[in-house]
Amino acid sequence: MSTPLSPTDRTTVRRGHARAATDREVLHALLDDALVAHLGVVVDTDGAPYPVVLPVAFAVDLDGPDDGGTLYVHGSVAARWLGRSEGTTVCVTLTEVDGLVAARSAFHHSMNYRSAVVIGAARVVGEAGEKQHALDLTVDHMVPGRAATLRPSTRKELAATAVLAVPLAEASVKVRAEGPVDDPEDVAAGTWGGVVPLRRVAGVPEHGADSHDRVPEDVRRRAVALGAPADH
Amino acid sequence: MSTPLSPTDRTTVRRGHARAATDREVLHALLDDALVAHLGVVVDTDGAPYPVVLPVAFAVDLDGPDDGGTLYVHGSVAARWLGRSEGTTVCVTLTEVDGLVAARSAFHHSMNYRSAVVIGAARVVGEAGEKQHALDLTVDHMVPGRAATLRPSTRKELAATAVLAVPLAEASVKVRAEGPVDDPEDVAAGTWGGVVPLRRVAGVPEHGADSHDRVPEDVRRRAVALGAPADH
Repeated sequence: MSTPLSPTDRTTVRRGHARAATDREVLHALLDDALVAHLGVVVDTDGAPYPVVLPVAFAVDLDGPDDGGTLYVHGSVAARWLGRSEGTTVCVTLTEVDGLVAARSAFHHSMNYRSAVVIGAARVVGEAGEKQHALDLTVDHMVPGRAATLRPSTRKELAATAVLAVPLAEASVKVRAEGPVDDPEDVAAGTWGGVVPLRRVAGVPEHGADSHDRVPEDVRRRAVALGAPADH
Repeated sequence: MSTPLSPTDRTTVRRGHARAATDREVLHALLDDALVAHLGVVVDTDGAPYPVVLPVAFAVDLDGPDDGGTLYVHGSVAARWLGRSEGTTVCVTLTEVDGLVAARSAFHHSMNYRSAVVIGAARVVGEAGEKQHALDLTVDHMVPGRAATLRPSTRKELAATAVLAVPLAEASVKVRAEGPVDDPEDVAAGTWGGVVPLRRVAGVPEHGADSHDRVPEDVRRRAVALGAPADH
């Protein structure tokens, strides 16, 4: 609870101040845990702007060139949202669901979750070195250490990859991690209330077609870290 | 692959046609599985519109009053995005991640996932009956059958609950569910490629403070359906 995350009004949490975890460490941990982000862009082709939200792979470079560190969003040059985003304000939201909160009334039902909302000006990464770096980070975000085991990307591959950089400076984080908060009457009435905890679990890695059956150590380690049995 | 999901251009999938599962059944199954949705709205307070994306609880009524069925998005009347949304176009995106695709090159790394993008005009639900219905559906979406076990919502609770209705008519679905798709040279080079499968797993339900220790059958069934041990 040391560093305010929201230098501007638009990412200041108005609701649930008690749940607004204003600690940048919480943001960084969530950026570590989340596998996809949801990127929101405003599309305005005929003067009637509407939002489009798409799931994207991402990576983070806390020492990146953007204010607060850089959030890299990964896409294809064929994706329409990308060309539209240069210089515009985008929103990147990450959410991990940790539990179903079965309260004693419909009204108090909730979920345990961690979420972050990042708003900032999008920069399309043009320089090949930064793009390769962002691509490596994206691979390592999925399977830590894997980028170093792969051949370098070709120029053609880099040209076909589009990367959007968003500064991490303007962000808000919310965390709910508790049991149901019920009205005393409903507790007194004896209705059961509690939480169904949820987590993401990996299975044993599956070999691709024409793949040898020796799972590399980085993949094995990642799967086990995500809960897969260790003896595969 | 029977019913086209995209009556308009803006939800027509331009990329990955092979992956665009245009089957409404896939949409409905995803709406069943997903626990949170990401709601995108356009905020325009000073002529510089920007997107805001927030995680929300939701429920679906395929027989609801809106075209294609109704997606109900649940919020608080205190939430700023809600008052701004009436009559505006919003985007609701759902994503379930099913696996990490460790390809033989950085470029072909991917994820297995199911996602849906719904775009439509938001309607703030005003009528108490529809609001209670949407709230019950939201509870039952978390724990099927639970709404019927709870006391009815009070007028005060309904007044403090805000529900947004979005038509399901305009939607697109994408599914990736396969191993890595690699270049022949990388396969020939002997690099391992495969998939780390991922799923959401529930733990044993945790009793809330002052709760009796008898987990109700609906909660137990839901936890078991999500992978919790059956013997609790």
